[in-house]
Amino acid sequence: MSLDETEALHRLVAARSGYLATAGSDGRPHIVPLVFAVDDRTIVSMVDAKPKRSTDLRRVRNIRDNPSVSVLADHYEPDWSRLWWVRADGTAHILDSGFEQVAGLLRAKYPQYVDIDLVGPAIIIDIERVAGWASSTR
Amino acid sequence: MSLDETEALHRLVAARSGYLATAGSDGRPHIVPLVFAVDDRTIVSMVDAKPKRSTDLRRVRNIRDNPSVSVLADHYEPDWSRLWWVRADGTAHILDSGFEQVAGLLRAKYPQYVDIDLVGPAIIIDIERVAGWASSTR
Repeated sequence: MSLDETEALHRLVAARSGYLATAGSDGRPHIVPLVFAVDDRTIVSMVDAKPKRSTDLRRVRNIRDNPSVSVLADHYEPDWSRLWWVRADGTAHILDSGFEQVAGLLRAKYPQYVDIDLVGPAIIIDIERVAGWASSTR
Repeated sequence: MSLDETEALHRLVAARSGYLATAGSDGRPHIVPLVFAVDDRTIVSMVDAKPKRSTDLRRVRNIRDNPSVSVLADHYEPDWSRLWWVRADGTAHILDSGFEQVAGLLRAKYPQYVDIDLVGPAIIIDIERVAGWASSTR
């Protein structure tokens, strides 16, 4: 059943990881795992120093070309009566500098960032719509 | 570090759940959780009778408008030295009927489908590229 927006946003705030979908100017969708923090109606994330396949990140290029993004967080387990997901659709922009506040939000949520540099850029997503679903309300 | 294509495809085949990104003709990306099976270089999934927020599914509409899709499966845990993800980019089409073989693949993978009708349509994704990343090779 549908989750109301307050409950969906609550679950998004609490989620430890999620997924970011972007689309290039060519219309091809792209999806990556995302660690993020939520500040009011804004999702923030940063490129960090975890090893990457490439430093020319398609998520960043896509957002510069097309700011529409979708972020999902979910719970999966073999008992399908306990599934849920929440999705935030919004508009993103890239911060190439001046992301100390964003880094602070991420470090406050993720103790793992004590040992990993937040090199940037930052991805800032203004949430326009939050929706969610749960297979039950338990 | 990057996973080679064979290893990435192996992890995709074994994954119990994943995420499907599509983009509409308006360029807006969309993302949903996905249960799927992999048959050679094809990912198959079906709309099932689990309760949905809507029967007019945007994933299906988007694929009819724009067949480019991206599928991700990953492993997240608080120990970031053990993260990994795999992503398959490809071209999808919708099967509105004649999906008995697809249903069989899904029922063979997911015992949960014994009790849930696979009502269709089916989503068939021809994999064009598989990539992956792991924070370590353990």
